[in-house]
Amino acid sequence: MGVSTVSRAINNHPDINAETKKKVMETIQEHGYIPNNSARNLRRADGKCIAVVVKGISNPLFADAIEIMEEEIKRNKFSMVVRYVNFNENEIEAALELAKEKKLAGVIFLGGYFVKREKSLQKLRIPCVLSTSGCDGDAYSTLSVDDEKEGYRMTDYLIRLGHRKIAVLSGMPDDASIGLLRLEGYKRALREHGIEEDEDLILHMRADVRFYSMENGYQMTKELLGSGKEFSCIFAFSDAMAIGACRAITDSGGRVPEDYSVSGFDGIELGNYYDPKLTTMKQPIRDIARESVNVLFDILNERYRHVHRVFPGELLERESTKKI
Amino acid sequence: MGVSTVSRAINNHPDINAETKKKVMETIQEHGYIPNNSARNLRRADGKCIAVVVKGISNPLFADAIEIMEEEIKRNKFSMVVRYVNFNENEIEAALELAKEKKLAGVIFLGGYFVKREKSLQKLRIPCVLSTSGCDGDAYSTLSVDDEKEGYRMTDYLIRLGHRKIAVLSGMPDDASIGLLRLEGYKRALREHGIEEDEDLILHMRADVRFYSMENGYQMTKELLGSGKEFSCIFAFSDAMAIGACRAITDSGGRVPEDYSVSGFDGIELGNYYDPKLTTMKQPIRDIARESVNVLFDILNERYRHVHRVFPGELLERESTKKI
Repeated sequence: MGVSTVSRAINNHPDINAETKKKVMETIQEHGYIPNNSARNLRRADGKCIAVVVKGISNPLFADAIEIMEEEIKRNKFSMVVRYVNFNENEIEAALELAKEKKLAGVIFLGGYFVKREKSLQKLRIPCVLSTSGCDGDAYSTLSVDDEKEGYRMTDYLIRLGHRKIAVLSGMPDDASIGLLRLEGYKRALREHGIEEDEDLILHMRADVRFYSMENGYQMTKELLGSGKEFSCIFAFSDAMAIGACRAITDSGGRVPEDYSVSGFDGIELGNYYDPKLTTMKQPIRDIARESVNVLFDILNERYRHVHRVFPGELLERESTKKI
Repeated sequence: MGVSTVSRAINNHPDINAETKKKVMETIQEHGYIPNNSARNLRRADGKCIAVVVKGISNPLFADAIEIMEEEIKRNKFSMVVRYVNFNENEIEAALELAKEKKLAGVIFLGGYFVKREKSLQKLRIPCVLSTSGCDGDAYSTLSVDDEKEGYRMTDYLIRLGHRKIAVLSGMPDDASIGLLRLEGYKRALREHGIEEDEDLILHMRADVRFYSMENGYQMTKELLGSGKEFSCIFAFSDAMAIGACRAITDSGGRVPEDYSVSGFDGIELGNYYDPKLTTMKQPIRDIARESVNVLFDILNERYRHVHRVFPGELLERESTKKI
C-alpha cells in the first residue's frame, strides 16, 4: 500500500476499495498519525523551515540580504530555502508551489509586487513578510524604506545642484509598487520647486529586458540620447540602471558627470568601485534583512501581529553628480 | 504516538517500551511503510527535489547559472532549492544538513572546493555534480572550463601585448582548486616565454574579506601599489577582483589601461558596462549551468555514469588592456 492509496482513503476518493479504506482509517485512528512511505520523512516531521522568495536574482542588493537572513534564520535554529522567480514570474504562485512541496513556517518575500494582492497572499495561510517592498494591509508585515520620500529626497538634491531637466529611469508603466512611489516622490519634488513635469523625461523600463538591470538602464538611456531631448541629469531607480546609463553616455561620447549627472538608488557595493563612484540613495539592506527575520519570528512566537516598518535611506553624494 | 516514538522503535532505542515498539514494527510490516505524523507529508512523499549549493552568493556569474538551472530543473518537473554558503563555510556540510531536512534526488554544487574531498561527498549518498569546479574522481561529475589552460591563455595574451611584469590577484595561499590551476597556467605561460617568475607579483586573496570580491581585489592592489614593486599589468582571477583593482589604481591617481593593463576572469555582465570595458576570459556559464542539470538527470535516469566535461573559455579583448 503506497502513499496514493492512503491519500485516496483520507480524501474519500471513489477509486479505493472499502476494506483498504477501513484499514487505513483504523491505522490512523489507532496511532494518531498518517502513514507515509519513507523512513527519511521522519527527519522532516518537525520541519522548521523559512522560505525566502527572491524576485530579481541579479540584484546585488539581495545577495547581501540573503546572507544576513541565512545567518539570522540559522541562529533561530530554523532552516532556510531560497526560491528565485524571474522578473516575469508570479512570486506568490511560486511561494504557494513551494509550500506544497515543503512544510513552511513562514515566507519572506525579497522584492516583488504586492499592491492589491492581499487575497493571494492569504492563500499561503502562513505568516508573510515583505522585505524591501512597502505595502498597506493587515495580512502581512512590510519592512522597507519610504520609497516616495526617498525618491523625493534624491530629486530635491539634484534640483539643488542646479538641475531642472532631470530624466528618470523608472519602473514599468503599470507599476503600482516601488517604481510608482519613487516616481511620485520625483514629481512632488518638481512641483515643490516649481518645475514643470515633462512626460518625455519619464522613461519606463522595457518589459522584455531584465527589470532594474544595467541592460535596461542602458537601453532607456540610448533611447533618450537618441531622441534629442534636452536634459542634464538622470535619476535611475536602481544603481544597476544608473551604471547602464553611465555606459550609454560614455558610448555616445559623453562624460559623467561633466556632461550629465547620474544618480542611482540602492547603494550596492559596485557603486563604490565604479568610475565615477555613483551618487545614490542607499537602502539599509542589512538592517532590513535582519529585522525581516526578527519580525517573522516574533509573529511565529505570537509576540505581536503584523507590522509595517520604515527604514531611513542614506543619500550618498559621490562622483557621478555635480553642480551646474 | 509521535514521530520520535516511531524513530526510537526503528532505531532500537532503549528508551521505548516493548509493546509500543512491537506495535510500530507490526504497522510497518503490515503496510510496508513508515508512519509519519502529518497529512501534509503525503504531498512530499515523491519529493523530486534538486538542491543547488552555492558558494559565493555575491558572484554575479552564479546568478545567471541559477536562473538557467531553475528553468531546466522545472522543465524536468523537479523542484529546486538553493542553499548559500559563506566563503568560510563548508559547502559539503551544508549539503549534508539540507539532505537531512529534505529528501533530495541530487545536488549541484556551484563553486566551492572539492579536491581531496571525495569521501565527504560520498557521505551524501546521492548524485553530485560540481558546476564550474573541475576535479578528478569517479564519485561525481564535473563541468567547468580548463582553468589551467585558460589561465595560460590569458597570460600568454598579456605577454604578447608586451607585458613582462604581470601581477596576479590569485586565490588563497592554500587553494588547491580553480585558483591554483589558473596560477599554474600563469606560471607555465611565463616559463614558455622565458620570463622569470617573481614571487612578489603573485598576490593571494585576503582570508578575512569575501573571496574573489571587488573589495579583495581592491585591497590586494592597494598593497601592491604601496609596495613600490614595478609592474605594468594585473591579471585578476575574477572580474570582480579586476574591478577592485581598477578602482585602486584610479584612487592612486593612475589610469587603466594607460598606466596599467588589467584583465579579469569570468565574463560577468558588469565587465561590459564598466569604464573601461574589462578584458576577460569568459566562462560559458549558461552552457555549463544547463549541462550540469542535464548530466544530473542523465545520471538519475541511469543513462550513464559520472562524467568530466570541459568547456572552452572565450578571451574577450576589450578596453582595460593595451599593447606596450
